[in-house]
Amino acid sequence: MTVAATALSPYDVRLACRNGTWKEASTAGVCEGYVQANLIILPERHAADFRALCARNPVPCPLLGETKPGDPTIPSHLANDCDIRTDAPRYNVYRNGKFVETKRDIKDEWKEDSVGFLVGCSFSFEAALVKGGYMPRQIEIKRNVPMYKTKVPLCAAGALTGNMVVSMRPYPPSAIETVRDLTRPFIRAHGEPVAWGSEGAAALGIDDPTGANPDFGEASEVREGEVPVYWACGVTPQSVVMASKIEGVVLGHAPGHMLVLDMRDEDVCK
Amino acid sequence: MTVAATALSPYDVRLACRNGTWKEASTAGVCEGYVQANLIILPERHAADFRALCARNPVPCPLLGETKPGDPTIPSHLANDCDIRTDAPRYNVYRNGKFVETKRDIKDEWKEDSVGFLVGCSFSFEAALVKGGYMPRQIEIKRNVPMYKTKVPLCAAGALTGNMVVSMRPYPPSAIETVRDLTRPFIRAHGEPVAWGSEGAAALGIDDPTGANPDFGEASEVREGEVPVYWACGVTPQSVVMASKIEGVVLGHAPGHMLVLDMRDEDVCK
Repeated sequence: MTVAATALSPYDVRLACRNGTWKEASTAGVCEGYVQANLIILPERHAADFRALCARNPVPCPLLGETKPGDPTIPSHLANDCDIRTDAPRYNVYRNGKFVETKRDIKDEWKEDSVGFLVGCSFSFEAALVKGGYMPRQIEIKRNVPMYKTKVPLCAAGALTGNMVVSMRPYPPSAIETVRDLTRPFIRAHGEPVAWGSEGAAALGIDDPTGANPDFGEASEVREGEVPVYWACGVTPQSVVMASKIEGVVLGHAPGHMLVLDMRDEDVCK
Repeated sequence: MTVAATALSPYDVRLACRNGTWKEASTAGVCEGYVQANLIILPERHAADFRALCARNPVPCPLLGETKPGDPTIPSHLANDCDIRTDAPRYNVYRNGKFVETKRDIKDEWKEDSVGFLVGCSFSFEAALVKGGYMPRQIEIKRNVPMYKTKVPLCAAGALTGNMVVSMRPYPPSAIETVRDLTRPFIRAHGEPVAWGSEGAAALGIDDPTGANPDFGEASEVREGEVPVYWACGVTPQSVVMASKIEGVVLGHAPGHMLVLDMRDEDVCK
């Protein structure tokens, strides 16, 4: 990313998204120290099931907050003057459980019964990894993080079910215990990894542990002497929308293009 | 079970276990309306990891309470005058991650650094199923509930990892939505099922969906026109002990032979 992007405040980023001037390939590494959120916007009739899904699956779906039905602003302790229809860089649009397009804003898609949910994101622990000397590869190579669908079923909640999505960062086996320790405190940002190495990839049902061919985001490089390390990912709710064949319009952020909040990273450690 | 067993109070059951006079094949259906708990007793060095494991996997591992290190009594709001070394019907003993024997009490195994954890049990929602007209098969045929190891990995927590264990009750497909609704409120007793039918069995990695050959408990009968319905099970921590190869002595209840508490079933719905 550019130097300018790293010097921006969360509100600057939200306004740049709102004004259509935001051009970065991902929000990874942007606004160090501030929480970034996954977005999922559902018809109100699925709101109770979604809260239950998060309560039953808190590692992939750590719920940070939600909007009132039909009101696109979010509670001010999360972000001040924030309109979730415009303030993320890009959005995915789903109709009847199928992905149809990516948009820069979703003002035309927002309904009177839309409820927006904010879910924690692994980008919150990346500053801790960088500070510890464990630079996430996708920041180093200036790409979006690679994300993979898994065969691990969530605990179903009413009409909602599906499989876990994970993000991947490669590390040498000798670094894994430290990387686990560094990310464990971030309990509302997926916390420690769920699996690692070829055995972990097999347990998750990921056929290709090389970092190539991700289901979301961009390919990464697992270099010689490294293994893939997988964290639960807040794209999981979008996988749920497809698996559960939710009728009507559902909206989400575009993976890797997060809503940047005014919350601090330490706020997701409790 | 005998009529006498159903008329007993939780304290009567605990005293019968303590005195060696308890002879039932399982505690399913005993003390209707009162919570039964799974037990896992770990060396104190694993206590923080176990709390994190429960927080990350609340459906299989809903934590109800714990003892102080070395003190085998449990908080009185859970059960009055309760010694977890003697008051469950039977115990499993693990040494260095391997199951070695079943005992009637574990007074000789309890250590100064032992910490006992109480985990919610699906027996708590069985009264609601019976009342709704959905008698669990294993109560009808007077057997222990069948339990199966799955291939679904838990979200790892420190030294602890492993796969989910589930219990199975067969129902006709037309009953599944009602059975889901009836068990959903019991959020600290595994809540609604995690999977059902042949597709669910496949997702969990259970090869035999007939109710025969359970890994714990006793075989059940999936009759014509019925499918297996799977709930997460509090035997999961014992599977974790084996998968994580925990050094030293770990103790658990014998599956299906639970510690009966003074808490009411409605207390696990919040």
